[in-house]
Amino acid sequence: MPATHDDRPIGVFDSGIGGLTSVRELFRALPAESVVYFGDTARLPYGAKSRETVTRFSLEIASFLVRQNIKCLLVACNTASSFALDTLSGRLDVPVVGVIQPAAEAPGVAVISRACPLFVPLVEEGWMSHPVTRLVAEEYLKELKQGALESLILGCTHYPLLAPLLAEVMGPGVRLVDSGAEAARAVALLLRERGQLATGAPSHRFFLSDEPRNFARIAESFLGAPLPPVAVVDQTDLPWFERAHPDWVPERS
Amino acid sequence: MPATHDDRPIGVFDSGIGGLTSVRELFRALPAESVVYFGDTARLPYGAKSRETVTRFSLEIASFLVRQNIKCLLVACNTASSFALDTLSGRLDVPVVGVIQPAAEAPGVAVISRACPLFVPLVEEGWMSHPVTRLVAEEYLKELKQGALESLILGCTHYPLLAPLLAEVMGPGVRLVDSGAEAARAVALLLRERGQLATGAPSHRFFLSDEPRNFARIAESFLGAPLPPVAVVDQTDLPWFERAHPDWVPERS
Repeated sequence: MPATHDDRPIGVFDSGIGGLTSVRELFRALPAESVVYFGDTARLPYGAKSRETVTRFSLEIASFLVRQNIKCLLVACNTASSFALDTLSGRLDVPVVGVIQPAAEAPGVAVISRACPLFVPLVEEGWMSHPVTRLVAEEYLKELKQGALESLILGCTHYPLLAPLLAEVMGPGVRLVDSGAEAARAVALLLRERGQLATGAPSHRFFLSDEPRNFARIAESFLGAPLPPVAVVDQTDLPWFERAHPDWVPERS
Repeated sequence: MPATHDDRPIGVFDSGIGGLTSVRELFRALPAESVVYFGDTARLPYGAKSRETVTRFSLEIASFLVRQNIKCLLVACNTASSFALDTLSGRLDVPVVGVIQPAAEAPGVAVISRACPLFVPLVEEGWMSHPVTRLVAEEYLKELKQGALESLILGCTHYPLLAPLLAEVMGPGVRLVDSGAEAARAVALLLRERGQLATGAPSHRFFLSDEPRNFARIAESFLGAPLPPVAVVDQTDLPWFERAHPDWVPERS
């Protein structure tokens, strides 16, 4: 007989607290579900780090979340989704959803991309509609604007906070796609198909590897709601997984 | 009989490769000395992270460098100097020099400070003289300019690369102090006093915890010279120190 419900939590991780924008979408799409969140605030950002290092960090965190008895894993970090999704899917016993493929899942479509490394620090500075941010956006998006785009995928969990400004810079006719929201919808679909929706009384847990000094202000603007209590997990707890799962450790290239 | 020379290397660490600006100054001030450098590129930046986490990272790295048989340690990261210098000085058998106190060592002087979190990503974007960087500098330094400063301490290893622009924004009459250069001079003085200068034939070693994708371009602009070969040290090598030195692990507050 197939399962008809599953009250275990959904695991979500990100390099930091930007993944709370995905949690906000999970809360909206699946109000009965419990979430266990891990933000790797001690080692963020992942954006410029190597595939090997991001994969190792992702395995450590996934291993921590699996010990929290999750029923599926949402990788809410675009860099980790891009580098580690296959490795995670191959090694975890629970389904893994990333933030890249749900947003880009449209066959026969040409995708062009542009790295925007200043957007995250600008959001963390709180300069969501500052003239500097507009100037940076105009420079970063100049070539994309000339490409006559249909859609612009916001390929980082921080970017939804820039959506109003990005919409103005791109002009009408370009649809902004929030990859975190798409991923939350993909999780909802997956759980429905597998008969694994929760029956209610959700209870959420939030873990960080460090409590940054500017944390609370940013976190609540990402989550769009007051933040539940947060536990700081000493990062030295994580490497246990390498002793427990020596076969999991990726080889250095 | 006091020592008259010491050919062991000088240890230098930073959250990333910004500390290479201090190494450049060491090379200039002490051309006979060998340097062992560690850049914690897997976990950078340290700027917004907590005192506990930055102290733990600093102890791990110092421990790694002590195993490289260093004769003194230069903490080339301003955040680590600010948070971890006392802890490091108390636990290491070699002298420890930070980048904060040599630059600010002037009794009876009033110091005011301003966090500039966008400067590092702007430097890493290569926008050293970009109009956006000028606009950001004007906003960050607005209040400092009104304070009729005598000197402006460049309190981060990345900032010397912005010196020409910052000098223009601050105007004439404000002396820019490069804290990395001051720290290199403090190391030279220390080694001279202790009879621990090297006799020549220097040999340098560079370690990183990750090799970032944009590494080489930035590193050489910091060092002001071609980069010697770099070894990537798997970050999972570091936690050994906690088993070796359980008394070193700082308590969480």
